[in-house]
Formats: sequence, structure tokens, C-alpha cells
Amino acid sequence: MTTQNEDTRWLNDEEQRTWLAYLHATMLLEDHLDRQLQRDAKMPHVYYGLLVQLSQAPHRRMRMTELARQAKITRSRLSHAVARLEQHGWARREDCPSDKRGQNAILTDEGYATLQQSAPGHVAAVRQAIFDRLTSEQQKSLGEIMRIIAEGLQPNEAGADLPWLR
Amino acid sequence: MTTQNEDTRWLNDEEQRTWLAYLHATMLLEDHLDRQLQRDAKMPHVYYGLLVQLSQAPHRRMRMTELARQAKITRSRLSHAVARLEQHGWARREDCPSDKRGQNAILTDEGYATLQQSAPGHVAAVRQAIFDRLTSEQQKSLGEIMRIIAEGLQPNEAGADLPWLR
Repeated sequence: MTTQNEDTRWLNDEEQRTWLAYLHATMLLEDHLDRQLQRDAKMPHVYYGLLVQLSQAPHRRMRMTELARQAKITRSRLSHAVARLEQHGWARREDCPSDKRGQNAILTDEGYATLQQSAPGHVAAVRQAIFDRLTSEQQKSLGEIMRIIAEGLQPNEAGADLPWLR
Repeated sequence: MTTQNEDTRWLNDEEQRTWLAYLHATMLLEDHLDRQLQRDAKMPHVYYGLLVQLSQAPHRRMRMTELARQAKITRSRLSHAVARLEQHGWARREDCPSDKRGQNAILTDEGYATLQQSAPGHVAAVRQAIFDRLTSEQQKSLGEIMRIIAEGLQPNEAGADLPWLR
């Protein structure tokens, strides 16, 4: 792209190559994991991530608002996802006893069993796509870089436009 | 997760932290860029990427199959996206003169103008989220790592399960 805007700091060639590689890798990996999980667990990667979060919570139960925050998704997307998980019998919702307006999501025994069955294939896919291909130095670097990007996109300031606050 | 499967090479603590940081960063960045582009250009990030690809092609025109390959998306997702771009007047499709079954996607002048208007804001968002936060060493490392991951997910072998071949 060229434009008349003189103030714009366009990406240079190397930055463009890096950005394109980021886009390609993230698109391809999401597609790959979605395919693998659809095949093995009959659910997309995002849903699988929600079951993982619930499985690690005390009593396999979390506030919906907290689940959205940890999954980095909007409340409406979470509601939709949990409704689908409920249809499959993998999760259920209940009103929060301490807060009339709050809801908890709970992993069912069936959901836990599904997770146990599909986790080895999922981990193998993640390992094969990322960790088996990178040196330990690159793995360390990837973790640092991704933490920096994630932190930058979650400012603490009031009124920040974060998915789970929408 | 714990399971009975003894052969599974589970992620260790550092690998888990790296994987979680990757998931958080990629989710947050996609949301951030989608929001910015919906606000400034009335389209999601994936659609914007298609217009960029077309703008860089000779005569602002590409075979649909090639566009899907470059965008790393399925043909059906591309068809859907281009249909939406057509509704906005930003792209159009025409039959390929040299191949009865092929179709080209073409960037319209309106599409090019939309791209010119929205590109500065998009580049600023990408720069702010990634390049302004990383050292040049980290930027180099990010490019290398993402190229390795992307290459690993695009095997040359026949029958590989790639989005644009579906």
C-alpha cells in the first residue's frame, strides 16, 4: 500500500515478512488444531480450551465472567459456547448462590471424560506443531514475546476495551 | 489434565506457560485488530487481509484458489468472504477466461480507496501491539519462529490437509 499519509510509519520489508509469517503461522495452527479436535473430540479448539479451564478450577467450576476473562473472549461468545457444551452434556450452568446476577459454568463428568480421551491427541498436535520444531532458546523466546504482546493488549486502565468486559 | 495414557508427552510447566501466552496473545491481537478494522473500515481482519492481497497482485486480480492459498483459509470461507466484499462494492468476481471452472477475484476502485483510508490505522495498531514492544532481536526471533511453525504446517506431500485444498 502507498498512500498520501506522510505520518504513517509503514512496516519495512523485514517487519512485513515477520508480520506475514505471524499471520500464516497463527491461521494455519488454529485450523490444524480445530481439525484435530473436531475429529477427535467433536468440538472446535475454543470450546476445548473452555473445558480445560474448567477442569483446572476448584470443583471444576468457574464464574462465567472469570471464564471469559481467562479465555480472552467476549461474554456473548462464551454464552454461546457454553450453551453448545451444555447441549453435548459436557458442561452445565447454574446460578451463583452468592450473587443473583452471576452464573457459574461447571464441567460435567462426561465433559471431563471427553477431555481425558482427547487430551493426548491435542497435546501431540501442539507439540508437533511448535515445541518439537523449536530449539529450547526459541521456545524461551516465544514465551517471552507472547507474554509481552499479551500484556500490552491488556492494559489495567479503566475503560480498556477488553473482550470479556463487553 | 492427568490421564492413564503413559505414552503422552505432556507439556512441562514452562511449555504450558509458553503455550498459554501464545493463546492469550493471538486471541487478544485478533480481537484488537478486528475491533479496530470494524470501527475504521467496517470489516473484520480476515476480509481486510484479502483486500491487501488483491491490492498487491498484478492488475489487482487473483485466482480464487491462489487467494485462498495465500490467505491460508478454506475455499468455502473465501467464497463467503468475497461475497460479502462484493456486497460492499470492494471486490468483484469474474470467470477466468483461460479456465472455465476458475474464477478471479478483483479489487475494485472503491475497495482500493477503502484500503488506503484504513491502512494507516491498521499499521499503527500492528506496530503498537507488536513492533513497538519488541527489541530488534525479539522481532528477528519472532519472524524465525513463525516461519518455522508455518512451514511445518504446510507439508509438501500429496494429500496434506491444507485449508485451501478443501
